[in-house]
Amino acid sequence: MAPASRLDPAVPDKVLAVSRSLYGNGEDAPEIVFHPQCFLASGHFAGDDDARAKAFLDIANDESFDALWFARGGYGSNRIAGRVTAALKPAAHNKTYLGYSDTGFLLAGLYKAGFPHVAHGPVIADINRDGGKEAVERGLRYLFARDAKTLEPTVSTETPSVAFNIAILSTLIGTDLLPDLSGHVLMLEETSEYMYAIDRMMFHIAAYAPLRKLAGIRLGRCSAIPDNDPPFGQTDEEVVRHWCDVSGIAYLGRADIGHDVANKIVPFGRLPGV
Amino acid sequence: MAPASRLDPAVPDKVLAVSRSLYGNGEDAPEIVFHPQCFLASGHFAGDDDARAKAFLDIANDESFDALWFARGGYGSNRIAGRVTAALKPAAHNKTYLGYSDTGFLLAGLYKAGFPHVAHGPVIADINRDGGKEAVERGLRYLFARDAKTLEPTVSTETPSVAFNIAILSTLIGTDLLPDLSGHVLMLEETSEYMYAIDRMMFHIAAYAPLRKLAGIRLGRCSAIPDNDPPFGQTDEEVVRHWCDVSGIAYLGRADIGHDVANKIVPFGRLPGV
Repeated sequence: MAPASRLDPAVPDKVLAVSRSLYGNGEDAPEIVFHPQCFLASGHFAGDDDARAKAFLDIANDESFDALWFARGGYGSNRIAGRVTAALKPAAHNKTYLGYSDTGFLLAGLYKAGFPHVAHGPVIADINRDGGKEAVERGLRYLFARDAKTLEPTVSTETPSVAFNIAILSTLIGTDLLPDLSGHVLMLEETSEYMYAIDRMMFHIAAYAPLRKLAGIRLGRCSAIPDNDPPFGQTDEEVVRHWCDVSGIAYLGRADIGHDVANKIVPFGRLPGV
Repeated sequence: MAPASRLDPAVPDKVLAVSRSLYGNGEDAPEIVFHPQCFLASGHFAGDDDARAKAFLDIANDESFDALWFARGGYGSNRIAGRVTAALKPAAHNKTYLGYSDTGFLLAGLYKAGFPHVAHGPVIADINRDGGKEAVERGLRYLFARDAKTLEPTVSTETPSVAFNIAILSTLIGTDLLPDLSGHVLMLEETSEYMYAIDRMMFHIAAYAPLRKLAGIRLGRCSAIPDNDPPFGQTDEEVVRHWCDVSGIAYLGRADIGHDVANKIVPFGRLPGV
């Protein structure tokens, strides 16, 4: 289902083809169902808030589904995140939820509610990126087989991790959706924001006292940054290092996530032990 | 002084001419001093954080000045707001501080610190807008003579008011700079943000529990909104009404503020009684 913006109707066939190429058509192959809500349109959104909330609950609360793979981000998950996380039934608990970008509002709310299989990674609509097959294959291999090669390389069984888009995390601050991230490695990524805006949002993250208890921050890719006038004078990594220094949060290096087809999977929390 | 971005060096002569046209050149005319820091450049900023913080304190802590009129916004006041509000001396307390947009970080911190003369209104650089003389005259008439015609028409002696740019208030949430706004009328304005981003920031403001105690929200002008693809489907006022409805905050109508030359002055708190 699509919690925010509408899905291109050409996407399902492409994604089903990727799945067939990986797993064939047999009884053991994954069954992928596109909720019709994905293709609704209501202004900016894939249907109005009621339609998107209902579609989320249709899948999440149906025990015949093993996973809810978000169709895409865009904008609008925040508008349903509070009400859907309050309406989840036991069938929703052990499902895997996979997405990134705007769907981070839902990932946050689900992780806060104690759901064990919440993960930051590709969405269905990534098939439309150049080389998008790679992203969709990664999503399938993670959801269907928990393939270890799909994981962001620094996630571990010892230190819990989470990953968010910088703008989404900034907007989560002070809301009921934000989980306690004490002791977590926080991975961040961004796209299409001015460097001054990235600096402002990193100020915000660094200024929020509960986030001082992070184990540290890793920076994913910040892509498609518009030109700053005048030139900002600092790179994305310099900006993040600066705010880590100011706040006393450890800067741990780069993370292999971003708004691109190489976006690796970050299961929220610790990896299960062997 | 310029707490964020650099001031155009052509501005002082234009502003001094406006002041002379209003108040002449005599002993009773206001004396306007431009701190040399206004014209420094350090990447995006009017000098580095140290230079901007020092300039702020040079003026704020000097009892020979009656007011600190911010040169302009842009981006960067947040980077010095914490440290300068911690370094203010008694001479800073009864001064008037006037600005808007990015300077809202400082207005917030000063109001939180109990400063009695903090106001949202024109900056010096508004002289460069079409018809900018009107904005600068308004600033001067407020700072020099407390002319009642300069005020946003709904400010009152009974209910306290504040005004902020929407993005700045969103970024203040959860930080030590945000004052207690219980019982206040909150006036909001925005410029150059997509409607989806305005919706997301209004979600944030509405989701922050302490702001539920506002007396209400008034919406100023949201200007230069880039085209949303697809069309967002709601106007700025519909968006703000929506989030007021969701959060139970009263929507009180429009406010006469914005990123333009008609931007009226909103003294933080109650107007002094007669």
